[in-house]
Amino acid sequence: MSTRDDLTTAMAELLWERGYAATSPREVMARAGVGQGSMYHHFSGKHELAVEALSAVIGEMTGESSLLEGGASPLERMKRYLSVPRAGTLGCRVGRMTQDPQVVVDAELIAIVANAFDTMLGRWEQTIAAAIAAGELPASIVPADLARTLAAVIQGGYVLARAKGEQGPMDAAIRGAVSLLDAAHAAGTDD
Amino acid sequence: MSTRDDLTTAMAELLWERGYAATSPREVMARAGVGQGSMYHHFSGKHELAVEALSAVIGEMTGESSLLEGGASPLERMKRYLSVPRAGTLGCRVGRMTQDPQVVVDAELIAIVANAFDTMLGRWEQTIAAAIAAGELPASIVPADLARTLAAVIQGGYVLARAKGEQGPMDAAIRGAVSLLDAAHAAGTDD
Repeated sequence: MSTRDDLTTAMAELLWERGYAATSPREVMARAGVGQGSMYHHFSGKHELAVEALSAVIGEMTGESSLLEGGASPLERMKRYLSVPRAGTLGCRVGRMTQDPQVVVDAELIAIVANAFDTMLGRWEQTIAAAIAAGELPASIVPADLARTLAAVIQGGYVLARAKGEQGPMDAAIRGAVSLLDAAHAAGTDD
Repeated sequence: MSTRDDLTTAMAELLWERGYAATSPREVMARAGVGQGSMYHHFSGKHELAVEALSAVIGEMTGESSLLEGGASPLERMKRYLSVPRAGTLGCRVGRMTQDPQVVVDAELIAIVANAFDTMLGRWEQTIAAAIAAGELPASIVPADLARTLAAVIQGGYVLARAKGEQGPMDAAIRGAVSLLDAAHAAGTDD
């Protein structure tokens, strides 16, 4: 790997382990085994390092939400994506960034996070609209609202799992969402 | 206020503004206008300061979830608590702590957070069980699961709102949850 890659990888690891606010350029250099001259040859500082490291991580989240597209019926796709195994106690690599006080005031970093959420929410909306059109969910559901509800269940599941240091609350939150969707489905087909 | 209170207040503000990992004892002393000797007379260090500051903040969350108790029908109480105005972009003072890498490895701090969530989740479970018993929700719903789903909607709503820097995603997540509960209610009464 190049020096640049070493620095980006070290930054991604530190973002994950310690967060952005608590990571210093000195620690990134130490982790990457790169000196100050070399570091500032490649990057202007911590911000630019984080832009590159975070952009790489975003790909994971965007790839996963493609499970909402193609294959089974819209409602089945929604349940399939909700039920993807997620290591709750590790937290979401993207969602956790929003809780970092230095990230939310950094326009470029928070835009990377916001764009990742927008891609995922757009897929949720399309799939929910398709489920309503197919009579799988009642017409009283607003796709833009439910998209945010279900994305919030996943993000909040990470918060509850980390609070307890256990996977259980994440899995329970997902099961509860699936059971509500099934109950709403029963209502929809009675319309 | 006493020196001890000044220090606790300063720590609570810094936890909120910068998080635990990114806050140093030196900053707490500077914010409180308290010298090192006086600080270490009252507190052994950052950990003990955070225990006291966080315990004070917990009262807010616990007080709010008492809205799940008393008054209207169980389903109405659930919707009332979901719909409490929440400043999404500020994040939850308690939930945000779970995303702080130094908090989750501090047994005493994370226990304070976990206990606050347990109190709130216990109230959710009781109210959901009452809604099922009253025929307001279908018997297919598991109270312990749906409790975590709805707590996750609130916590995840904060994450989505902070990602966009807007209140909208929080409000949409709550509206979507209320509409799913209403749809499940319709299914329940058809049983």
